[in-house]
Amino acid sequence: MSAKPDMVHASISLKPALDAIGKSMDQRFDRLLPVPQDSRAQLFNAMRHAVIGGGKRMRPLLVVAACDLFHVDRERALRVALAIECVHCYSLIHDDLPCMDDDDMRRGKPTVHKAYDEATAVLAGDSLHALAFEILADPATHEDPFARAELVTELAVSSGPSGMAGGQMMDLVAEHELYDLGGVTRLQQLKTGALIGFCLEAGAIMGRIPVASRTPLRGYARDLGLAFQIADDLLDVEGSSTKTGKAVGKDAAAGKATFVSLLGVERARTQAVMLIDQAIAHLHSFGPEADLLRAIARFAIERDR
Amino acid sequence: MSAKPDMVHASISLKPALDAIGKSMDQRFDRLLPVPQDSRAQLFNAMRHAVIGGGKRMRPLLVVAACDLFHVDRERALRVALAIECVHCYSLIHDDLPCMDDDDMRRGKPTVHKAYDEATAVLAGDSLHALAFEILADPATHEDPFARAELVTELAVSSGPSGMAGGQMMDLVAEHELYDLGGVTRLQQLKTGALIGFCLEAGAIMGRIPVASRTPLRGYARDLGLAFQIADDLLDVEGSSTKTGKAVGKDAAAGKATFVSLLGVERARTQAVMLIDQAIAHLHSFGPEADLLRAIARFAIERDR
Repeated sequence: MSAKPDMVHASISLKPALDAIGKSMDQRFDRLLPVPQDSRAQLFNAMRHAVIGGGKRMRPLLVVAACDLFHVDRERALRVALAIECVHCYSLIHDDLPCMDDDDMRRGKPTVHKAYDEATAVLAGDSLHALAFEILADPATHEDPFARAELVTELAVSSGPSGMAGGQMMDLVAEHELYDLGGVTRLQQLKTGALIGFCLEAGAIMGRIPVASRTPLRGYARDLGLAFQIADDLLDVEGSSTKTGKAVGKDAAAGKATFVSLLGVERARTQAVMLIDQAIAHLHSFGPEADLLRAIARFAIERDR
Repeated sequence: MSAKPDMVHASISLKPALDAIGKSMDQRFDRLLPVPQDSRAQLFNAMRHAVIGGGKRMRPLLVVAACDLFHVDRERALRVALAIECVHCYSLIHDDLPCMDDDDMRRGKPTVHKAYDEATAVLAGDSLHALAFEILADPATHEDPFARAELVTELAVSSGPSGMAGGQMMDLVAEHELYDLGGVTRLQQLKTGALIGFCLEAGAIMGRIPVASRTPLRGYARDLGLAFQIADDLLDVEGSSTKTGKAVGKDAAAGKATFVSLLGVERARTQAVMLIDQAIAHLHSFGPEADLLRAIARFAIERDR
């Protein structure tokens, strides 16, 4: 059997890259968030609890991989990676609150409202949200203010009511309203797909790639986002909380429609594999510089957490 | 007695200006937030509940007044005003949550978590937060991307952990830790002063005024912010919930130190008047174009809500 050209590029292992970005994020968050010696100490400790030491760091790695396509300076790419991780972590803090998903564990640690309290969790989320935009708008992220403003626009749109927050609202309503496949797809495209889309778009913005040339990246992001979510749904059914570091089986218990409940395990798995092949196919015009993106796509459906 | 020159300029009444900005904000938020015909409807309705029809609109008016100093196009100034009101309202929604101040009424209406539910309130706050940055980074706000990025930086810093959110954390801790006058001043400079500072800074950014020339505006903002808070503390002691549209006497009940509890009513009032004179004095190099800022300063300590 002859391997498809894309498959050859996708053969690199993701483990070293994930370890490296994890270490890199931890170091940078540690430097970025020194704990002040005043009554705000608890807020900064809660922010550090949320962003340091944990998580797959998939989104930061996606940003770096997308920036690599266009030879963006690594330090600058890592600043954008910090920003997206701030938004991702703020959304997890708020999502874990008792009035939302009411989760006690996250990334193998107590959630922020368990480690501190609910009020601190609300403020820590809000603070990370603001910090993300502060990082993006800083001249250290890009020398061209147009690129900085564009990053801000994209992050605001993809995390706001027409993106992630809108998807979270759809998810809340899901407890009373059973979505069909189109509904679940739309929900996930907003809830997780929009931020994944930002990671790829950010690479193009950092590389000053015109909007008209961003179609392959957008296609990759869309397919990857859905495959990633289907894989999450499969882990929720088949995974263990020891590996995922969070509670499993919650969606089924809440009676929410998921890709797995609508398609069944086998068809969901097939669909995820198909989407990943499609995601990788979008990258056909790129050479080895897109190998990391290809490897991330494979990893999205092979991971066990 | 001969009036001081500054006093002459301050003679315009604020009522028409406040009415106009209130109407202007309501109309623009109505256009900005059409309710989608999908499961996100509740999120948009909650956002509308928070930003339309209510509040003094002091911060938007401050933005417009600061922009007037530098002859900024009114439509553009109003976009910045929308952004600051988004952040102010998001902070009120989160502050009113049961885990924070647990308030049932705001601006004479049920708070967002009372009108909807807590999860929707968390998401509506987060959505308005993101929307503020989306508005600022849009080319319609300023043709120069440098100005847009600078607005984003200033808003992120003044609303984040080194600004408003940091002040809210200090306020939470205040239930266990009794601040002295320095502590209360620092708390209020972060909690309310930082955003008021943004309103004035935004005028300078929109007018492309160099940082070195912003000292008078910063002095005005600092003094106004403190006077505004002292007036709030006085209203909390002396006001009625009918007029303020929210619960009164809560700080005293919670045993928190305030300007009034530390200084007493009379000294607090004297201090506020002194600060307002000082705020107006910072504007001495401006002519009639600063009359609105002078009138706002007077209003800050004369208002009954």
